[in-house]
Amino acid sequence: MNDDRPLEGEDAAVAAVLALLDGGTALSVGPGHDCAVVASGGDEVVLTTDVLVDGVHFHLAACGPEAAGEKSLLVNLSDLAAAAAVPLAFEVGVVLPTGVGRNVLEGLARGLARAARRWACPCAGGDTNVADAPLTLAVMVVGRPGPAGVVTRAGAREGDVLSVTGPLGGSLSGRHLAFTPRLEEAEVLARMGIPHAMMDVSDGLSRDLPRLCRASGVGAVVEAEQIPVHPDAMRLDDDRPALEHALHDGEDFELLLAHAPLAPGVARELEHAGVRLHGIGRILAAREGIVLREEGETRPLIPRGYDHFER
Amino acid sequence: MNDDRPLEGEDAAVAAVLALLDGGTALSVGPGHDCAVVASGGDEVVLTTDVLVDGVHFHLAACGPEAAGEKSLLVNLSDLAAAAAVPLAFEVGVVLPTGVGRNVLEGLARGLARAARRWACPCAGGDTNVADAPLTLAVMVVGRPGPAGVVTRAGAREGDVLSVTGPLGGSLSGRHLAFTPRLEEAEVLARMGIPHAMMDVSDGLSRDLPRLCRASGVGAVVEAEQIPVHPDAMRLDDDRPALEHALHDGEDFELLLAHAPLAPGVARELEHAGVRLHGIGRILAAREGIVLREEGETRPLIPRGYDHFER
Repeated sequence: MNDDRPLEGEDAAVAAVLALLDGGTALSVGPGHDCAVVASGGDEVVLTTDVLVDGVHFHLAACGPEAAGEKSLLVNLSDLAAAAAVPLAFEVGVVLPTGVGRNVLEGLARGLARAARRWACPCAGGDTNVADAPLTLAVMVVGRPGPAGVVTRAGAREGDVLSVTGPLGGSLSGRHLAFTPRLEEAEVLARMGIPHAMMDVSDGLSRDLPRLCRASGVGAVVEAEQIPVHPDAMRLDDDRPALEHALHDGEDFELLLAHAPLAPGVARELEHAGVRLHGIGRILAAREGIVLREEGETRPLIPRGYDHFER
Repeated sequence: MNDDRPLEGEDAAVAAVLALLDGGTALSVGPGHDCAVVASGGDEVVLTTDVLVDGVHFHLAACGPEAAGEKSLLVNLSDLAAAAAVPLAFEVGVVLPTGVGRNVLEGLARGLARAARRWACPCAGGDTNVADAPLTLAVMVVGRPGPAGVVTRAGAREGDVLSVTGPLGGSLSGRHLAFTPRLEEAEVLARMGIPHAMMDVSDGLSRDLPRLCRASGVGAVVEAEQIPVHPDAMRLDDDRPALEHALHDGEDFELLLAHAPLAPGVARELEHAGVRLHGIGRILAAREGIVLREEGETRPLIPRGYDHFER
């Protein structure tokens, strides 16, 4: 059944599939953003899904089922935060490897329950299967738009500031399993009308920023010196500079947003509400591309984050 | 990480997990039915999910990716039919085995798109991953209640008639891949206020009926002679009687419902609307258990349908 065409990267593959799956006019926001928005009666429903597989997104033998379960809900809540939406409930589909004990299923449930309680997003149902497969967790969260409506990846404008809500890099040393989805920060930002476009950094800044730029039809410049590098990245004992990790690692789950330059009063109000924005660059015209400026030199920002089709 | 307790069947395992995942009061209908119902503003949102794995729910090498993709949406639409709900959109999470060509992904998308067009349920988004795993499709459908509200598995009353919307058995010879989710039949039935309780037959009548009975707090008697046996079951060349297949095979995706005895005018109106109900038994008091009557003898109906934890 296979043909000889290799998969050309995740975005190319997904684009080819989406061409076959035209959602039509029923969707206020369709595929290609962190969440979709579906009209239902007078309301809008926000949807997102993420699938996590043992050996790819977590290592069950190392982290245990609770951490895996917790992460599977948190990553979806991070997508909801990116849309400034409010979680309502989740569904979970589980594939259990043949022969695992019930304690693994219970551990997953405990981890899911912890995240569910913390973020007021109860389990609505699910589906459990056993197969000769690695442990797989498919979570879908349904939410509602926040009071300021849904924020998407589209809407960034030339001249906007590009910011992140926290430091990047080195998440694989543990942070990627138990992090804080930026739901509260997103609520504050959206209520103050700040984000023109927003997403979460899941596959790495160098891979995610182009997605925001493509959705908005813009370019961007990132200032290397301004990127907040996480201490986890500095502590890594490898031969790559910490900045490389901050640019490419992924699974930071901070928000990346484009917004108008903040008046001093607005920045103070944000900090008072517990939100610190780290400006890391500017939105450019599309023709200027997506570039990194480091020590006075400007070069294209080459995506090197995680790509499911380039392993 | 494994302990020594074996999994004691799917229902036992899921019950243990649900105890950890109390959904609280945000859910109008929680886990344990074909769909969940979540309040969102003034509206209700209907949710369901099913995960399909190569080697369990389909055999990719035999059926190809289009049939697998189509089935993954159809089974969820069948759950929506069981709740007499109306589909709005779906999300799909895909795990592709390492090394498959993009044509597999495109085949899946074509199958999904065919079912999406036929049943007016567009793709809202998804998530694609590559892993050393069998092809896995996690589909979640969001819908809205039909005009008569959501029907659940609870509500069957002693004295009700037990009916199915079509013949059972032998679906594995092909029907399980491309079937008609009973959305139209459910809409007619719900509009006429007929179902007291409803579900779809996915794991086999002998396994699914007890679920409806448990949710409703009732028992039931099934009359062997009244069960409509599908020609596929009669054609099977094995040593089991066709009735056994009708009772236990599963993946029929017909609706099973409990309802008041139909007045002749109502039955005619139903047939005129294209819905044929096959009465197969009666709802009893819980203490009478779940029994099969065959050639004058009554014996317990032993679940033998597909159980993910009894392979």
